[in-house]
Amino acid sequence: MSLMSDAYAPVLASVRESSPLVQCLTNSVVVNVTANALLAVGAAPVMADVPEEAGECAAVASAVLVNLGTPTAEQREAMLAAASSAHLAGVPWVLDPVGVGALGMRTAFAQRLLDLEPTAVRGNASEIRALAGVGAGGRGVDAADDVDAALDAAREIAQRTGAVVAVSGPVDAVVAVRRVARIHGGSALLTRITGGGCSLGAVTAACIAAAGDAFAGAVAAHALYAAASERAAAASDGPGSFGWRFLDALDAVSPSDLAAVRVDETTAVRG
Amino acid sequence: MSLMSDAYAPVLASVRESSPLVQCLTNSVVVNVTANALLAVGAAPVMADVPEEAGECAAVASAVLVNLGTPTAEQREAMLAAASSAHLAGVPWVLDPVGVGALGMRTAFAQRLLDLEPTAVRGNASEIRALAGVGAGGRGVDAADDVDAALDAAREIAQRTGAVVAVSGPVDAVVAVRRVARIHGGSALLTRITGGGCSLGAVTAACIAAAGDAFAGAVAAHALYAAASERAAAASDGPGSFGWRFLDALDAVSPSDLAAVRVDETTAVRG
Amino acid sequence: MSLMSDAYAPVLASVRESSPLVQCLTNSVVVNVTANALLAVGAAPVMADVPEEAGECAAVASAVLVNLGTPTAEQREAMLAAASSAHLAGVPWVLDPVGVGALGMRTAFAQRLLDLEPTAVRGNASEIRALAGVGAGGRGVDAADDVDAALDAAREIAQRTGAVVAVSGPVDAVVAVRRVARIHGGSALLTRITGGGCSLGAVTAACIAAAGDAFAGAVAAHALYAAASERAAAASDGPGSFGWRFLDALDAVSPSDLAAVRVDETTAVRG
Repeated sequence: MSLMSDAYAPVLASVRESSPLVQCLTNSVVVNVTANALLAVGAAPVMADVPEEAGECAAVASAVLVNLGTPTAEQREAMLAAASSAHLAGVPWVLDPVGVGALGMRTAFAQRLLDLEPTAVRGNASEIRALAGVGAGGRGVDAADDVDAALDAAREIAQRTGAVVAVSGPVDAVVAVRRVARIHGGSALLTRITGGGCSLGAVTAACIAAAGDAFAGAVAAHALYAAASERAAAASDGPGSFGWRFLDALDAVSPSDLAAVRVDETTAVRG
Repeated sequence: MSLMSDAYAPVLASVRESSPLVQCLTNSVVVNVTANALLAVGAAPVMADVPEEAGECAAVASAVLVNLGTPTAEQREAMLAAASSAHLAGVPWVLDPVGVGALGMRTAFAQRLLDLEPTAVRGNASEIRALAGVGAGGRGVDAADDVDAALDAAREIAQRTGAVVAVSGPVDAVVAVRRVARIHGGSALLTRITGGGCSLGAVTAACIAAAGDAFAGAVAAHALYAAASERAAAASDGPGSFGWRFLDALDAVSPSDLAAVRVDETTAVRG
Repeated sequence: MSLMSDAYAPVLASVRESSPLVQCLTNSVVVNVTANALLAVGAAPVMADVPEEAGECAAVASAVLVNLGTPTAEQREAMLAAASSAHLAGVPWVLDPVGVGALGMRTAFAQRLLDLEPTAVRGNASEIRALAGVGAGGRGVDAADDVDAALDAAREIAQRTGAVVAVSGPVDAVVAVRRVARIHGGSALLTRITGGGCSLGAVTAACIAAAGDAFAGAVAAHALYAAASERAAAASDGPGSFGWRFLDALDAVSPSDLAAVRVDETTAVRG
């Protein structure tokens, strides 16, 4: 079964028109590129991540991203407040379990966040497997496992929390309890700059808010990253030039570029 | 009445010659681009923002920036220490009330900082209105109000604290109790990258230190941003290329480029 | 006596092949460019810097960087944990004493870190002098002293701790108790962007891990920065374009480019 691009390609126009306000509680390494990626796609970033303001902000945001990259004590408190507030207010929120499985504290902390039922989860294969309690996790933020080996884990998280689960890799997968979409294409240069995956979590939040649908939003975000990274890579001489060309490409990608990305959908049958 | 460019154009050469040491206590999103903007204009950044060092540093700095973007508890303590120390030592300091009016804690906190009599305040129209206690504030860091609607609020802050108040928008305004300068030009691409406004706060601090005059310094900084952003935008394909071209332009702008920016000054008559 | 490039040029290939996992506890200003520099040279960055995870991560990392740029209380605790863990596990770790001598708290804190016997120390001349207890320190992060004036201080740190000490300047020096290598070339544009020196500390950690030798690793890292910064500067119009071209150059530099860097070695004779 093929997913008609009609389902996700309009999400891009919708992000640009509605300019969703995306609150990000994210790590110090990628916070700048994440805000710039959101601006480039037409969303409005707000990085409020202190406990006194996080819940207040989440209640009025269009979507929230919680990314575990460098989780200070203050941020962890703010993350719980923001996720609780989003959950209560019906605001979609995305969990990016950076480094889960590789480091103990965040591995335990991610389970508390899962209880707050994220709308979507985005990570690499080893993070998704570790989040589901399978596998020993990667080497820090590396993607040690491949995407197919994480599909059962993704489905388990989907069943437990109701989240759509996106697994990043050479071919990305977006997984719901009974659906799997595979997004082809993209460029490996996204893995040669920091924030390639982390900013995708924020753009996934923006697309879900604009789409009003977690599955279509997540697929749209991943298709957008595939189209934009290919466009940027074609003109790049290395990771430095790819970095800024990718922001230009996020701004320049057209709905027809997005519709040209190969997306395959299958109805999942559990083993 | 027209403000002679003689009053502000020499400030640029002065920054490049004196290389003022600008201490920034700023948010995690823009801290890198802020340091790079200061380096590009010829100033020397120092980002000391822990309580144990903030006051010590402020006493010997040429100028201090306090930006409320992501105000952790430790940073808030450091901000009070730095602003107090600057105030006591006669070091000029600039307040950038990011998100004031939109979020409760920082809205209250900004009032404590105002009591320490900043030399200048820089924000968008909704932030300036909220800081003066008018208007409900913007949507996070958006500029929901226009610049003219914030002039009375700016003047009120100027009267209460003695600060020069800069309001960023399509046409920027620099407001003192009895003076208003309007700086024309610039590029909307500054709003498509994060840090366009926040780094201007730091450069305003550098220019005030070099000028030895808050009004001329603030006008010079805004004229510099107008000239540099136009130059960068002319060669840019999107927000990614604008980002680095803007740093190149801050480095390359000449005093005559600066003198070519249209600056109108009027003597304010209160309503 | 001339240091044969055979001793350090192979380190670059070794970094690219082994992709050492480099844990960085570093400042908010440069954390992004540091991760990107590590990715560009072929290393794998992990920025785990909270106390609950820092020691756990250091024990399995290939190398650790501790950079004192913006040392929050939580980071300081994590730095002690990471350095202790690295020291115990025999993992090489690098200390970058940013701003030591200029600000009191970090000047004292750096001494506690020195007791944990870093494998290498990298700083500018005034930081190295202040770390050794000589000189009043620079103006924030400026390099007020020249490299030659810091050689005795570097040697003293080397004797006290066993570290290799790298002093950055127009001509860099890498100092051990009985050896000094001078690395020529490079571009002053590295001082016009933030993170030029800080990211070198991280790349030094990567090279030491790949070389299995602190002196050869430190020389290789500095030669790599000399070669890459020259290559980037040749094509740059200012600090903005230099920033991304430098990342491209770190990725593109060949072993023969590295071997072409002039490195002079002398056996040190103490005065």
